[in-house]
Amino acid sequence: MKVYADQAATTMIGSRALQAMISCYTEHCGNPSSLHEAGRDAEAVLETARERVAQMLHAKPGEIYFTSGGSEADNWAITQAAALGTRKGKKHLISTAFEHHAVLHTLDALKKQGFEVTLLPVHEDGLVRPEELEAAIRDDTALVSVMYVNNEVGTIQPISQIGAICRKKGVLFHTDAVQAVGHLPIDVEAEQIDMLSMAAHKFHGPKGVGALYVKKGIPIGNLIHGGGQERGKRAGTENVPGIVGMAEALAESLENRSEKNDRILAMRQKIADAVLQIPKTRLNGDRTRRLAGNLNFCFDGIEGESLLLYLDLEGICASSGSACTSGSLEPSHVLLALGLPAEVAHGSLRISLDETNTEQEADYIIEKLPVVVERLRSMSPIWNRQGD
Amino acid sequence: MKVYADQAATTMIGSRALQAMISCYTEHCGNPSSLHEAGRDAEAVLETARERVAQMLHAKPGEIYFTSGGSEADNWAITQAAALGTRKGKKHLISTAFEHHAVLHTLDALKKQGFEVTLLPVHEDGLVRPEELEAAIRDDTALVSVMYVNNEVGTIQPISQIGAICRKKGVLFHTDAVQAVGHLPIDVEAEQIDMLSMAAHKFHGPKGVGALYVKKGIPIGNLIHGGGQERGKRAGTENVPGIVGMAEALAESLENRSEKNDRILAMRQKIADAVLQIPKTRLNGDRTRRLAGNLNFCFDGIEGESLLLYLDLEGICASSGSACTSGSLEPSHVLLALGLPAEVAHGSLRISLDETNTEQEADYIIEKLPVVVERLRSMSPIWNRQGD
Repeated sequence: MKVYADQAATTMIGSRALQAMISCYTEHCGNPSSLHEAGRDAEAVLETARERVAQMLHAKPGEIYFTSGGSEADNWAITQAAALGTRKGKKHLISTAFEHHAVLHTLDALKKQGFEVTLLPVHEDGLVRPEELEAAIRDDTALVSVMYVNNEVGTIQPISQIGAICRKKGVLFHTDAVQAVGHLPIDVEAEQIDMLSMAAHKFHGPKGVGALYVKKGIPIGNLIHGGGQERGKRAGTENVPGIVGMAEALAESLENRSEKNDRILAMRQKIADAVLQIPKTRLNGDRTRRLAGNLNFCFDGIEGESLLLYLDLEGICASSGSACTSGSLEPSHVLLALGLPAEVAHGSLRISLDETNTEQEADYIIEKLPVVVERLRSMSPIWNRQGD
Repeated sequence: MKVYADQAATTMIGSRALQAMISCYTEHCGNPSSLHEAGRDAEAVLETARERVAQMLHAKPGEIYFTSGGSEADNWAITQAAALGTRKGKKHLISTAFEHHAVLHTLDALKKQGFEVTLLPVHEDGLVRPEELEAAIRDDTALVSVMYVNNEVGTIQPISQIGAICRKKGVLFHTDAVQAVGHLPIDVEAEQIDMLSMAAHKFHGPKGVGALYVKKGIPIGNLIHGGGQERGKRAGTENVPGIVGMAEALAESLENRSEKNDRILAMRQKIADAVLQIPKTRLNGDRTRRLAGNLNFCFDGIEGESLLLYLDLEGICASSGSACTSGSLEPSHVLLALGLPAEVAHGSLRISLDETNTEQEADYIIEKLPVVVERLRSMSPIWNRQGD
């Protein structure tokens, strides 16, 4: 049996999204900037996709800027919020210790340019405390960037509360919602979000496509300069088929979302109950305030990469953390931020499921995972010493 | 009849590229950064595409960095060359007056940061003079960026000579080759190019995919920070199907290229001969040192946008200049750089053909264009005054 349990890394394209893209590739192949019929047709298709995406986020079409993905959107939002802050003499940025590297490394680059960065703690439950955020905001704070859902432990941050605090204090609020969009209902208006990053390939859309929502009236500058695309804010011929695929994937993903989440939650519960029977095993992050499909375990005495490889041999695709850093030998910065010791963080396993997974697959994970853990522990000198 | 004569704006996806993409979407859907089988499989597919693209440019696979397109590649190359220069106290940048806006607007942004920019003239023939470039290079010159083929008039710049001068002087040389790749044989090694931008949708590949070639040893920094993709230089989950599509499209485009170019040249010649029979009509840019499929005319007394709309009614898709600025009411900066007066530059028409166009289509253009020009002139107060 083959089980893909790494949906947080990337998802397989949905058949509706793929079909929409193929139709677009073959029927709407103009450049949306061209004045002729082929161009106007491509532009109409692009703007329909923009309206669909906007509507699903409770935004206006003019607030959606298409990008090449979540990383570009994060880089764009943060660097330009910093530039806006600079004009007002504000050079303080607030984020959290367990953001995706697209946020953290952008902040690192800004630090070298003279910005001061405060990274909020996220505690053992993997949650930001709104009161700690409020206390960290200063008169010179230009931006708060807090991810919607953490990519490793799946914890859902108190975004509405953070939005309210930032709005009250007059500070721009960006959220990296790459792991949230398509999985949770999002309302940028009600949640008082100023900027939001998303990526299509996390909800069965195409890779290489994303968007940045920017609330109307925020005079964001460009990350990519050039032609007048995206109201002059993001140059480059629009990836019309990819954008159409993203809109279709998002629509499909959000249909009957709560029933889907119930089914995913049932699978998660079943796996969690079984896996937590394994001795010296812990679930990282808050047990309930997390994305339905996310499980993140640590198994004492086991090295995460070996666990992955043995699971892979059994046909189970999972992850030790973020795919973006999987080549790294460092322990997960997310788990360290949750307060786990480095040697424990090394033994982490992320299982991420969604509506395309089945109960049979969950059962297969339950059947194989304890066996693999036991086999690895039997080979582990650390574990065997601990067992002495 | 419908004639798409705007191939320089964008091209229709090729069937081989589309098929390769669909196979990739359905069969290789992992994240190349993931350690498991699905990830390793996606990585293998990605690296094969990288090898193919590299080989076709006479580069090494490790010198190819995939991007979201030509504009991102241009922005990345120029901002990072400027950053490298800054470290050595070099704050002078050289480019040309008729670059694409992805280059010019990036240079504008750098000017605001204290860089000095020299834009070389391109003369009436639309060509840079190597001796003028050489004279412009200073001790503090950090970068020379000259486009390979101009996007409006199609003129092919003396890239090998420019490369030799820059190498001799120890200055980085970037070329925006978005209009050249897939249409001309390119050898980054022989032409002594340090950085080269390309975009798949200009040669029947997908939109939203491109690449930046960076010669080994140039310690380029990131435009997009985050995960470790593209050897740590360009964050974001790779658009594997798009990249595979680009490699396939490039391979198809370069097959029998010289026969294709001969056929395109014959169509161009036929159209040029017929159109230049129209009184008060000129061909912009050098007659021979231009891309096979490019024609750029000015018709006295005619406004370019009206010309396009009337041609569109006849089923002919053409352009007045770059698609990226087609919404603009400004005359083409390219034609102004060639020394045309603004009122003449307003009446420009770009016809861009490639191997997917047919002789019947060329004949149709020859049949319709003079009629449209005559009709518009009969309605033009300027033309009728001139005729007095």
